[in-house]
Amino acid sequence: MTQPVFSIEPWAITENELSLDRLEQAESVFALSNGHLGLRGNLDEGEPVGLPGTYLNSVYELRPLPYAEAGFGYPESGQTIINVTNGKLIRLLVDDEPLDVRYGTLFEHRRVLDLRAGTLTRTLRWRSPAGRVVRVSSRRLVSLTQRAIAAVEYEVTAEDGPIRMVVQSELVANEAHEVRQNDPRASAALESPLVLEENVVDDVSVMVHRTKRSGLRVGAGMAHEISGPEGTRVDHSGLGDISRVTIAADVPEGGTLRIVKYIAYGWSSQRSRSAVHDQVVAAIAAARLGGWAGLLEDQRSFLDSFWDGADVEVDGDPAIQQAVRFALFHLLQAGARSERRPIPAKGLTGTGYDGHVFWDMEMFVLAALRHTFPSASADALRGRASTLDTARAHAARLGLQGAAFPWRTIDGQECSGYWPAGTAAFHVNADIADAMLRHVDTTGDAEFEGEVALPVLVETARLWRGLGHHDSGGRFRIDGVTGPDEYSALSDNNVYTNLLAQRNLRGAADLVTRLPAEAAKLGADGEEAASWRDAAENMVVPFDERLGVHAQSEGFTEHAVWDFEHTSPDQYPLLLHAPYFDLYRSQVVKQADLVLAMHVCDDCFTDEQKARNFDYYERLTVRDSSLSAATQAVIAAEVGQLDLAHDYLAETALMDLRDINRNTGDGVHLASLAGAWSALVAGFGGMRVGTSDLIRFAPRLPNGLARLAFRVRHRGRSLRVVARRTEATYELVQGDPLMISHHGETHQLGGRPLTLPIPTMIVRPRPTQPLHREPMPRSAHGM
Amino acid sequence: MTQPVFSIEPWAITENELSLDRLEQAESVFALSNGHLGLRGNLDEGEPVGLPGTYLNSVYELRPLPYAEAGFGYPESGQTIINVTNGKLIRLLVDDEPLDVRYGTLFEHRRVLDLRAGTLTRTLRWRSPAGRVVRVSSRRLVSLTQRAIAAVEYEVTAEDGPIRMVVQSELVANEAHEVRQNDPRASAALESPLVLEENVVDDVSVMVHRTKRSGLRVGAGMAHEISGPEGTRVDHSGLGDISRVTIAADVPEGGTLRIVKYIAYGWSSQRSRSAVHDQVVAAIAAARLGGWAGLLEDQRSFLDSFWDGADVEVDGDPAIQQAVRFALFHLLQAGARSERRPIPAKGLTGTGYDGHVFWDMEMFVLAALRHTFPSASADALRGRASTLDTARAHAARLGLQGAAFPWRTIDGQECSGYWPAGTAAFHVNADIADAMLRHVDTTGDAEFEGEVALPVLVETARLWRGLGHHDSGGRFRIDGVTGPDEYSALSDNNVYTNLLAQRNLRGAADLVTRLPAEAAKLGADGEEAASWRDAAENMVVPFDERLGVHAQSEGFTEHAVWDFEHTSPDQYPLLLHAPYFDLYRSQVVKQADLVLAMHVCDDCFTDEQKARNFDYYERLTVRDSSLSAATQAVIAAEVGQLDLAHDYLAETALMDLRDINRNTGDGVHLASLAGAWSALVAGFGGMRVGTSDLIRFAPRLPNGLARLAFRVRHRGRSLRVVARRTEATYELVQGDPLMISHHGETHQLGGRPLTLPIPTMIVRPRPTQPLHREPMPRSAHGM
Repeated sequence: MTQPVFSIEPWAITENELSLDRLEQAESVFALSNGHLGLRGNLDEGEPVGLPGTYLNSVYELRPLPYAEAGFGYPESGQTIINVTNGKLIRLLVDDEPLDVRYGTLFEHRRVLDLRAGTLTRTLRWRSPAGRVVRVSSRRLVSLTQRAIAAVEYEVTAEDGPIRMVVQSELVANEAHEVRQNDPRASAALESPLVLEENVVDDVSVMVHRTKRSGLRVGAGMAHEISGPEGTRVDHSGLGDISRVTIAADVPEGGTLRIVKYIAYGWSSQRSRSAVHDQVVAAIAAARLGGWAGLLEDQRSFLDSFWDGADVEVDGDPAIQQAVRFALFHLLQAGARSERRPIPAKGLTGTGYDGHVFWDMEMFVLAALRHTFPSASADALRGRASTLDTARAHAARLGLQGAAFPWRTIDGQECSGYWPAGTAAFHVNADIADAMLRHVDTTGDAEFEGEVALPVLVETARLWRGLGHHDSGGRFRIDGVTGPDEYSALSDNNVYTNLLAQRNLRGAADLVTRLPAEAAKLGADGEEAASWRDAAENMVVPFDERLGVHAQSEGFTEHAVWDFEHTSPDQYPLLLHAPYFDLYRSQVVKQADLVLAMHVCDDCFTDEQKARNFDYYERLTVRDSSLSAATQAVIAAEVGQLDLAHDYLAETALMDLRDINRNTGDGVHLASLAGAWSALVAGFGGMRVGTSDLIRFAPRLPNGLARLAFRVRHRGRSLRVVARRTEATYELVQGDPLMISHHGETHQLGGRPLTLPIPTMIVRPRPTQPLHREPMPRSAHGM
Repeated sequence: MTQPVFSIEPWAITENELSLDRLEQAESVFALSNGHLGLRGNLDEGEPVGLPGTYLNSVYELRPLPYAEAGFGYPESGQTIINVTNGKLIRLLVDDEPLDVRYGTLFEHRRVLDLRAGTLTRTLRWRSPAGRVVRVSSRRLVSLTQRAIAAVEYEVTAEDGPIRMVVQSELVANEAHEVRQNDPRASAALESPLVLEENVVDDVSVMVHRTKRSGLRVGAGMAHEISGPEGTRVDHSGLGDISRVTIAADVPEGGTLRIVKYIAYGWSSQRSRSAVHDQVVAAIAAARLGGWAGLLEDQRSFLDSFWDGADVEVDGDPAIQQAVRFALFHLLQAGARSERRPIPAKGLTGTGYDGHVFWDMEMFVLAALRHTFPSASADALRGRASTLDTARAHAARLGLQGAAFPWRTIDGQECSGYWPAGTAAFHVNADIADAMLRHVDTTGDAEFEGEVALPVLVETARLWRGLGHHDSGGRFRIDGVTGPDEYSALSDNNVYTNLLAQRNLRGAADLVTRLPAEAAKLGADGEEAASWRDAAENMVVPFDERLGVHAQSEGFTEHAVWDFEHTSPDQYPLLLHAPYFDLYRSQVVKQADLVLAMHVCDDCFTDEQKARNFDYYERLTVRDSSLSAATQAVIAAEVGQLDLAHDYLAETALMDLRDINRNTGDGVHLASLAGAWSALVAGFGGMRVGTSDLIRFAPRLPNGLARLAFRVRHRGRSLRVVARRTEATYELVQGDPLMISHHGETHQLGGRPLTLPIPTMIVRPRPTQPLHREPMPRSAHGM
């Protein structure tokens, strides 16, 4: 783990010095987004740059997927998020010398991501190689209230003597940058993906492009408010992939040139060029109504309301306090205005994983959003559900019934180029179903239940019913699938998969029973529902009686344990140093799999089983995936391993702020960030929802935390839970009284806060991890 | 099955009519080879052509292997056999009109592959569009005695009136033809793979080329003997990739122009251009010593000697009689002079499977060659053994001990681009070990045993010892590997793999015990050998007690049976219509796997188990692989299903002559051809060797055969077995007396033939096959 570059504060992320070798990480950390539009934290002037990035949710290009040996059903092309027209570019010339922090002298460079204002501010003082000193202050936002809009306030002041300044504010498409793809054909497809359709210079300048293969039309526009000294000259030009507004001024000493730039985007797979153009112009007109001040004010008020229902307070570990708010901020940014589009693994903060959506959306990201900003959960799930027809077609192509959602995708088409770790991980379908059931449970949204959840549940239940079969003993088996752990593949009866499939089958059966008319439209009836219930009832869940633990999949505990003794620290992550076949046939776990089952299906395991299983799988789990530590934290806390849970919490919470996996530059790890919330709320707060009628808590703090307070939304209420070492206080901030469970005891929570003692617990020995893979002790994380 | 295009004769394959839509099949069927050099049966004049082909064993080019998602240890490039310089090209101009069978009138076109002469002859009468009639007669051979040499005798006669004839005899490199590769980069790599180094025109004209990436130097030369009318003019030229001898003559009516063309090849990865050049010239000089007549005579005498020890006679089914001789001829061609190079799946008859060598060499092809032309078995195995260092490096790269031979290769490097069906099929190592043990058993070659078998056995035993592990009960498991059946993958304890690994471990231990000094050089001692014996002793062999059959792999019999009822005939082969995941998790068998284990490990199963297992797996086996029918024939015969065995025999024996799988055009199926021999000798002859000290027979004929006679070589003897309905006669043609087993009774076979009655057998119900996948009844094959 590296030393922090961001100072630790409760409500902001501040970078006090520009670090050129950490540009990419900072660009991801400082990325602004509203779920529809995302801007990486690139410098205003565009250079130096790690990875230039402006993204629109679901705007992608196709690239061919090559195979050394092809097979039936392999996808022929994949989808890759593209860097669309860059509207945040503002270049500055100081007496004809371009502002470039790599030249001249940078006296000061400070960036602050303000988690309550929702802005990224930058201040710098720079002396040009010719000796002229300017102060630049910029502030940027991506509006959480006007989804098509970003805006920048840019001020430059002449510090010592008059300066002839030229500001070039641009829209640039097809920005040159190295495309990091192995396949030359893929590079070719992704280099300059946008084909110009129009470049119109006007009060609002607009460029419309179209992607070459995926055929998506993208419009970007800009407009400016300029205040500068008398004689300030403004020129507009547009040529090729560049639209430019040039502002030239002789600025007296102490004088300031100020520009507000409004940037708008629109895209469509169907609408005409002029429709897209007009949409962009209209968005800017709307933004100008309230102006820059209005945007700032709306942003803050939106965030105030968010924090009011979602904040998590952590006493005793300020870095975690900062990290969990940073996490919630990025989660909100990813989902706030996605509006019926799913949330990619990196949100709109980078090109990692090609901008694909995975199961982590449902199982990690939405777990947090559901209780903090439920409309984002609804939007993301509606986005998934909108691809149901594609999933039906995918299932049919694979010879399956119902619907098979893709392992990785942008618009619903399977983009997995290695099926044993992709398409075969059918649990994604149960994950989606689970998230829908939980969403309904948490929001009580009946319309969502009938419109969205029912068809998805029915089609995924059909998938499971056809994917599994009854053996001669009448047990329902699901063979040859891949569970969450990517160091196993194509196993029989993966516990996680089977338990989630069981819930999927039961949930679908219940919905069909409750909504018979709607179900009939899907051709589902009581007989079919009964066949789902029967399958669920007889689901195989492998348990190794000899060891007294669940086998992650059938036969798993018979396999050889990985030779951890002879694996050196630099051989991790194992997948870069060992062939799949060896990983697959060994007892080695990349990421929580059975342990995740114990979190999400907490009612399927006894306390004793949880403790024994956790101990067993801890010894095998190497955490080569960022999807693991959070779950380990939750279960560690549940089985009383509180300090271990704290260590895992730190690993997941600091993933991006400390760049623990050295790939934050590709985009933030949304699932890890959501995991920070889960580790606190489900881990130390012990919150469990969705597996019984109650909302349950079992707070218990590790030695390193003095107090934990969190707010969650549930069934129309806002609850606040404050946990201390010996007692916990529950408060109903808003809504009707409800029953809650505290460490297994049921209480009614009404108008006044309820303070309850925390029972003592059995202390067991701390489980061990594979050699070299112990989590860093929280005390060593530094502040 | 299609109607035959070749007439049925005992010692020849005759095509009486040129069929343009079957050109490719005929080119493979009529391919000539000696294992070092192979010529496809392309027409002399080069066009029309299916696939032009001239191959040198192990001359390949590299091509990149692309992956949509790369993984550790995936090979970056593959090897592909290339079409080297074409020396068989002889074009004819008849009064300035090129002979092209697609134009003018073809009165007659006949080709005969003579299995005793070892020649391909062609006779045709053709009238040019301008009305001139010629008779052309060509005869070609690839010398079985002079490995670098091919030769063509070409005669053209003016039939009606004098004709001005021009014959252009050429060497042409980089012949243009469509490269059938999906990947454009692969096409680029394989288009014009040869770079010219020299083109020397002389009495012997020679061209030397070098491959672009693999860096192999290839020399080709030609020389001519010409007899024609007075005034016949001969010109030599050489330019670029073409060397040409032009022979022009005014041929009077009834007159003949006769050309004998000697063609020679040489190649090397190391030797200089001049060394390769000189080698080619020298080979031609040697060929000219005895001349065309000498080559013909040597060829026939070589074949006489071969047939003398290898012929199989079949009474009652003339098509099978022809087919088994055709099979033996192609097997001989593939192995006769390979000289320490392994034998590709297609021999040197086409580019199928990229010219790769697979495990079928050891388990199918050598099974026949070992007993018919043992030196070919030795050569091929020495070729394998020569790649031991590469196999060691491959194992090390995969994190394994010992040596891991590649799934598919030309020169020993793994070329498998889909590891679950390739690299994970580790049984190839045990197959190689098994073939070496059997070779030693059959030939008694002590030098081979110490030099070749010992190092390979030791290193493969080390592989198995490290690949498997002992479970807590002390049983030795081999998890996560792929057995012969390619519709399963990554299974635990595949019976075939485990039994062969057991033999490998035991065989290695025995060798180390017997050859301690040589073993010591490999670092192997009695302690290591003991650890192999222990592992072998405790090998897991899954048996399903409930069903009373062996599970092909652990858990296999728990899987869902493939839905054969709803699989239509046009959905076969399944791999082109169903995703791997669905095949892998179902009870459906592409090719004999457990049934193959019952053949090669015949001593590991009781008769009752064999019958039950065969019945069980017959219901699941779809024979989507050409490697299946032969084994099913052998075991069908063993368990008394004689007519079913006859059906399978026909399927394997007629694979290429009837183009059953519609891909003979890519090259003949050597393993299927070897299977024809096995089905007769091991099937109806019941021959088993190598699993006990005795050579065992258990002859029994199906209704369709009246008599089967075969000759095999074993431990320095030549034996002849004649089986009739009720009795069998054994004859020691050559060598010392030996003990044989006849239907389980041991007899001494000495100077005089032994005639023994065939015991009656229990008749069981005929097993069933999956719907639409029953073998065609032999009666329906036609003659």
